[in-house]
Amino acid sequence: MSAGSTEYPAVLTIAGTDSSGGAGIQADLKTFTAHLCYGTSVVVALTAQNTTGVQAVHSCGPKFIEQQASLHSVLDDVEIKAMKTGMLFDAASIRAVVGTLKTYYTGKAMPPLVCDPVCVSTSGHTLLQPDAVDVMISELFPVTHLVTPNKSEAELILSTRGLPSTIETLEEMLDAGKNLLTLGPQTVLLKGGHLTVTMADIDRVSGARPGLHVVRDGLFEDNTEILQVVEGDSAEARIVVDVLHTASSTTLYIRPRIESTSTHGTGCTLSAAVVCGLSRGENVETATRNATVYTHLGIETAFPLGQGYGPLNHMHALTVRSVPQPTRSNPHPFTRLLIQSTASIWKQYVEHDFVKQLARGTLPRECFIHFIKQDYLYLRYYARAYGLLAAKSATFPQIKAATDTIINVVNEVNTHKTFCAQWGIGEAELLATPESPATTAYGAYLLDVGLQGDTSRLTMAVAACLLGYGEVGLWLRKEAQRPHTWVVTEGNPYRQWMDDYGGAHYQGAVRVGIETIEALAQADPPSPARFDEWRAVWERCTLLEKGFWDMAMNLA
Amino acid sequence: MSAGSTEYPAVLTIAGTDSSGGAGIQADLKTFTAHLCYGTSVVVALTAQNTTGVQAVHSCGPKFIEQQASLHSVLDDVEIKAMKTGMLFDAASIRAVVGTLKTYYTGKAMPPLVCDPVCVSTSGHTLLQPDAVDVMISELFPVTHLVTPNKSEAELILSTRGLPSTIETLEEMLDAGKNLLTLGPQTVLLKGGHLTVTMADIDRVSGARPGLHVVRDGLFEDNTEILQVVEGDSAEARIVVDVLHTASSTTLYIRPRIESTSTHGTGCTLSAAVVCGLSRGENVETATRNATVYTHLGIETAFPLGQGYGPLNHMHALTVRSVPQPTRSNPHPFTRLLIQSTASIWKQYVEHDFVKQLARGTLPRECFIHFIKQDYLYLRYYARAYGLLAAKSATFPQIKAATDTIINVVNEVNTHKTFCAQWGIGEAELLATPESPATTAYGAYLLDVGLQGDTSRLTMAVAACLLGYGEVGLWLRKEAQRPHTWVVTEGNPYRQWMDDYGGAHYQGAVRVGIETIEALAQADPPSPARFDEWRAVWERCTLLEKGFWDMAMNLA
Repeated sequence: MSAGSTEYPAVLTIAGTDSSGGAGIQADLKTFTAHLCYGTSVVVALTAQNTTGVQAVHSCGPKFIEQQASLHSVLDDVEIKAMKTGMLFDAASIRAVVGTLKTYYTGKAMPPLVCDPVCVSTSGHTLLQPDAVDVMISELFPVTHLVTPNKSEAELILSTRGLPSTIETLEEMLDAGKNLLTLGPQTVLLKGGHLTVTMADIDRVSGARPGLHVVRDGLFEDNTEILQVVEGDSAEARIVVDVLHTASSTTLYIRPRIESTSTHGTGCTLSAAVVCGLSRGENVETATRNATVYTHLGIETAFPLGQGYGPLNHMHALTVRSVPQPTRSNPHPFTRLLIQSTASIWKQYVEHDFVKQLARGTLPRECFIHFIKQDYLYLRYYARAYGLLAAKSATFPQIKAATDTIINVVNEVNTHKTFCAQWGIGEAELLATPESPATTAYGAYLLDVGLQGDTSRLTMAVAACLLGYGEVGLWLRKEAQRPHTWVVTEGNPYRQWMDDYGGAHYQGAVRVGIETIEALAQADPPSPARFDEWRAVWERCTLLEKGFWDMAMNLA
Repeated sequence: MSAGSTEYPAVLTIAGTDSSGGAGIQADLKTFTAHLCYGTSVVVALTAQNTTGVQAVHSCGPKFIEQQASLHSVLDDVEIKAMKTGMLFDAASIRAVVGTLKTYYTGKAMPPLVCDPVCVSTSGHTLLQPDAVDVMISELFPVTHLVTPNKSEAELILSTRGLPSTIETLEEMLDAGKNLLTLGPQTVLLKGGHLTVTMADIDRVSGARPGLHVVRDGLFEDNTEILQVVEGDSAEARIVVDVLHTASSTTLYIRPRIESTSTHGTGCTLSAAVVCGLSRGENVETATRNATVYTHLGIETAFPLGQGYGPLNHMHALTVRSVPQPTRSNPHPFTRLLIQSTASIWKQYVEHDFVKQLARGTLPRECFIHFIKQDYLYLRYYARAYGLLAAKSATFPQIKAATDTIINVVNEVNTHKTFCAQWGIGEAELLATPESPATTAYGAYLLDVGLQGDTSRLTMAVAACLLGYGEVGLWLRKEAQRPHTWVVTEGNPYRQWMDDYGGAHYQGAVRVGIETIEALAQADPPSPARFDEWRAVWERCTLLEKGFWDMAMNLA
């Protein structure tokens, strides 16, 4: 058996299908996926159903269930962390399921089993044969960690065993839960969707039964008057309460009642969500709390579907990543996406005429001189931008990284001066050079981004220059190595410039830059809005880089 | 029929089950959910299988399929935007499916159908009866928008019709695809997972067959030398190619080959992902491109599960929201979460002794005077923080909102002066008041957050003061209304202060503040890391607010 992933724990549902996708194993699998659990499923019966009702039921027969389970198709191969049963159809199927589980888990701990005691569909269709209720109680309940009946299921189960079975008040709910606990399951969650109560009822019951825990979700919390004033007075609100009984405690989960017809599959969804919590090691109280919140939001955010009782929205908590995870074949997905999403302007920048003429050795000398003089002025902005980055950093390593870059730029400026001197430009001339508008535009934009945003935006802004010159350096190096290359290396007056940016030292800095922005996108996966912001900054800087080379060509 | 949601389009799979959850309708439903599509499913056959192989197959019989479909359990009730078939088991089932679809869509447009022609499992188990292949070609293909065979399925289909059926080279793949197209489907995606090719093969074929499109994903793009250098030379890479044939074009989707045993359910996943794209109106080229990328990442990010060929990771692109969507019963989920996640310190701030003594009228006069003098100094920081917010804003409405707050603070300062005068403090004394460390801590922290972060963090920082005083005002107002209240209103020297913060004017500002931070959290849903940052800023400010009242009580 494979241990599976702790990030995506494996869970199991043993239940019926719902062709319309709102209930049964379909709802379970959707709920598992929405909780990032790995879902497996054993189908007990097939139903043709939709939001208006159940049209047909087709039992798979206990032999097939037993075969699936006893052949250990699932259990033998996958380490299940928690599981549930839903519609079990008849006594033979229940016996097959329980028998197989008991055999498989002989001598090892059985993962927690949640039993959703599905008996009758909302539309009145029998989903469990009447004689099977007794078998469920006597055989399934003793191996059940949590049983999750609604009012009618609880009443049916209690009356089967001759226990008081009327559940019309909160007090009767509490008594019914205690009686259910005597039938064998370790814990009982009695769902109160049918009962409308108020805070006064909760207060009365809490007063009369000390030790009762009340978990308030969505409304009713202390010190949230500012929200309650906007949202209306919670004391008047009609609320729903679910009651969890364990051997040692009773907890009421209360939340606002919502009027909705999107309730098809609520019970399946709730029990499946509890399974997900249990599979991650949550205790039953926490798993129940999170599952009730998830289910409640599923109803409230449901989209219209079907003509009858529509399904919940199982996907309300999910968002889709704007930037994929890094993988072995694509270890730098964010950088790749930035370049892909600005491919046209990136190409205009990297394969600029300035670059091509420089590589051919045909670039007019005055253009290059104009460029390196303005580059000197640009580097001052660039160093200041890293100063801003240091000031905005949260950790010493970040402060040091920004500061190291400033030191590198300062050193580069000295090299730059030497380089300029070779081209006949003295330091006095460099200092006296008037700043071109393209230089101001780019430099001031960097500092504006640095003022306006956080470190992530500023990091995107400085990346375009670093990565772009790296790309130019590698492109020219690769082109130079082709047979019959157009790149001129021998006697090219600009060869040192090409060698510098294609060389190991500069490329080392490029790698660090790439790793930095990748780490940033993984640590704080951007929302679509935030990715757009980052992309826009990157694109603007790419455009300004291109403008810088336009300036050099035009001597502007 | 209900139109359903455009945000969550409804899709359908007609296929077999896989108890182990990696293939069949389980893989389809997981893929649908991962693409935020609403999944429905018609089960043709049940299989007991796992990552090591297929242990048993149980046909549901064509009567049940026809019943499900012809009774229109799904079709009648849900508007399907795109659909797929997977394992169809036998000729009778294929006829039942096609007949029901044709009957239902008589006189209306059938949504695009993707046919994954599942014939034999990877482990060699027959999933389609041999005599059914011919029925699939003659009856299902003509209503198929896209058919997605792999090598062995394509060979079986082609040989059934006496067409050349050997697919060992890229050229043979292209010819096979064209031949498949003659069998009736509108488009053909021939999957090339079995064939290892290199860029040289692609270049050769592209040269020989003009008009061939090549879509490069993951690697091989232009102008990405900086990535290729880090990742290795793509020219040497072993690649996989899928070929899409339409009536008018042929497209090669190429990507790096990955060695993996996590391939159980690859075909199901790919075809399901294409369905999701088609359901949103993507053309077949775009849907295919996105689906191949999704499937490729599913293999690459797979977690170990089972002892044989494990499943793909269907959840690689999903993240779970840190902040729930707003709903009618919880319209301010972000504010609620902020308060809940800092409940203890928030309570210490709101129900501070300073507040209680003030409400009882027992607060020492010198404490209150110390407080209002320091509050005057604090407001100067507060106004400056909004100045920084204006400077960091991206839009005129944001600039105006920040500026309006500055004007409000400036006006409040005038009221504050009058108020101070009533307590015997003149302007000269106000200006000469030395700043307490607690005032400096709080004020300077606001400005530091403003310098370090973007507008969102600064907005969180200024919210704690606005919302906290609002909560205090409402709490005292509510307490004052209780019978036998402890709050003293008659003759309380601090009554005006209470009335101001509980009053309509201040509460109006609180509402705007709440709506602002809620809008921010919805427009740019924070990653867990980002939510923690925001929460930390909010918590710090709450603590500094409490410290401000400690200072007043201690005359520090």
